[in-house]
Amino acid sequence: MVNDARGTLLEVREQVHSELTSYLTLQREYLSGIGSELIPVCDALESFLLEGGKRLRPLFAYAGFAATGKAPTPADIRAFASLELLQACALIHDDLMDRSDTRRGKPAIHRHFENLHQSEAMNGLADQFGEAAAVLLGDLALVWSDHLLHTSGVSDAALLSALSVHDEMRIELMAGQYLDVREAGEKTPSVDRSLRIARYKSGKYTIERPLHLGASLSIIDREERSQLVNVLSAYGLPLGEAFQLRDDILGIFGDPSVTGKPAGDDIREGKRTVLMAMTLERADQQASAKITAALGRTDLTSDQIEEIRGLITATGAVKDVEDLIEGLLSNALTAANSAEINPSARELLIELATTATRRSH
Amino acid sequence: MVNDARGTLLEVREQVHSELTSYLTLQREYLSGIGSELIPVCDALESFLLEGGKRLRPLFAYAGFAATGKAPTPADIRAFASLELLQACALIHDDLMDRSDTRRGKPAIHRHFENLHQSEAMNGLADQFGEAAAVLLGDLALVWSDHLLHTSGVSDAALLSALSVHDEMRIELMAGQYLDVREAGEKTPSVDRSLRIARYKSGKYTIERPLHLGASLSIIDREERSQLVNVLSAYGLPLGEAFQLRDDILGIFGDPSVTGKPAGDDIREGKRTVLMAMTLERADQQASAKITAALGRTDLTSDQIEEIRGLITATGAVKDVEDLIEGLLSNALTAANSAEINPSARELLIELATTATRRSH
Repeated sequence: MVNDARGTLLEVREQVHSELTSYLTLQREYLSGIGSELIPVCDALESFLLEGGKRLRPLFAYAGFAATGKAPTPADIRAFASLELLQACALIHDDLMDRSDTRRGKPAIHRHFENLHQSEAMNGLADQFGEAAAVLLGDLALVWSDHLLHTSGVSDAALLSALSVHDEMRIELMAGQYLDVREAGEKTPSVDRSLRIARYKSGKYTIERPLHLGASLSIIDREERSQLVNVLSAYGLPLGEAFQLRDDILGIFGDPSVTGKPAGDDIREGKRTVLMAMTLERADQQASAKITAALGRTDLTSDQIEEIRGLITATGAVKDVEDLIEGLLSNALTAANSAEINPSARELLIELATTATRRSH
Repeated sequence: MVNDARGTLLEVREQVHSELTSYLTLQREYLSGIGSELIPVCDALESFLLEGGKRLRPLFAYAGFAATGKAPTPADIRAFASLELLQACALIHDDLMDRSDTRRGKPAIHRHFENLHQSEAMNGLADQFGEAAAVLLGDLALVWSDHLLHTSGVSDAALLSALSVHDEMRIELMAGQYLDVREAGEKTPSVDRSLRIARYKSGKYTIERPLHLGASLSIIDREERSQLVNVLSAYGLPLGEAFQLRDDILGIFGDPSVTGKPAGDDIREGKRTVLMAMTLERADQQASAKITAALGRTDLTSDQIEEIRGLITATGAVKDVEDLIEGLLSNALTAANSAEINPSARELLIELATTATRRSH
């Protein structure tokens, strides 16, 4: 049963990949018709979108659709795939804002264009060009995501039904991103505030809204789908928080060869995560001072990172976060077993919940 | 007759202002419900959108609608107003990419949030916070523009008809913006390349597409509006180029108290405009060397700017650009008098053409 679900998810991932490939090919033709200077833009976005990515948001949209008991058409898959373009915008802008050098083991978009500026010995400042390119490629990916949704071929009624969920999701994403950036400016961490950020950035944006989007493409009438939508929230919101908490752990303890990010990246970036807020709440004065001093220092050696990891684990925060993840996952699984979910989608939701919370990247 | 058109445009501007005010009030309620940390975001976008702006794009959308002979409803006005939110995104991101300090005489959004970071003695780097805020406020404005269009209250058929023009416009905008940023990296200027950028950034984005958007909200059937759309292009494309050329002149010779930008801003920014490309094409070696050395220097004194202005004028490039503007304006006016344009809209198009090309800010 679980293997069937896993097989379905792999298949949907491939379909999403193939739809993205077709869409990007069309856009390459269009943009290179405007000017050959736009070819590096197409190259960079193609590489960003097609060489990696878990496709989690399209998969959750698929699951939301499947929860209604209907089978998505290729047009629906294109609509789900549009979420990957939105996510590309979020990641490209995120890396720029965080001044991250890499994404999935390759240069972040702003670094890629900075390198391009240097290798072509262009006029002006390479870092300014890299930043500007990242702003615009993110904007373009955001507009493309809309365009792919609009031209997906779903019925007019389905599209109109999806637009309001889609808009709400994007407003929540930008609000969550701002809260996240704002949090880094707070003098002291807060578990509550970090949990709220996790709710907006991941609970809603990554899981709940994609599920709703899928459901809204299948059941046009808002009233008719309202009970299912509630159950999808009961599944998606805790799962999204658990997803973010797993991210917190991977951001500090993840294996660089699997995550594609430097070891202890969240320490170097001084990221205000729930895990870090819990750590500092529980740490004694000496440990707390050591950890706080390390946060945001990009020059940490691997020994120093190892030491900070040890201090974090010693507070018990990692265990507490793992327990929190298990509790949230259990709530999500209970919701997945509700009568409102079409039985054919149940294993899919369970498999996705496991993927989102027990992943290593 | 012209006074009637001017009166209509003033009235539409007020309606657009009022619709934006209502929309932003609703969004403030929504965002402050998520967290009070989002109030500065609402404040900044309200001030950005409501304290100034020529509302050119909504006015052109209005004119495109009026060209069909029908009268727009308040729902249509809301759809036109959404273009101001898109423009806010473009300007906020533009100022960030150009590292401009001011917009309409006030701090640019990234500077505003940098100041906020400092005055609240927040944790971390003030400039990084300012940049991140500008990325996200631009993104939010882009999503809001979509949301206002979708919730404007126009009929489903009108909305679906508008979406494809709207998407094409936004893709062209991002492509034009990239070409503009890329142009600054070219070793030598080019009149042809700068004209192409003017075509995408201004001809299409500022004028042609807003006209088409207006027409598409009034006449749903693509075939039925195709002849009108062609005439609107014949009016809008040359006018948009003329608009950009006026911008080039104002960027160097504009009065700071009227433009809200520092004197000679395009010189300090080293902006690759058509005017500058023509100047360098016509200048002798000595003048060319002097001008080139001044481009991109933010520390120029007002005497130095005056000297560069004199050198630019002496090449004859300003007169040539003025002649070009007149020629393009004349083409636009010819199109405005085509039979396809409903006579009731003719004076409006003529008045707008004059506003766009003979303005002082």
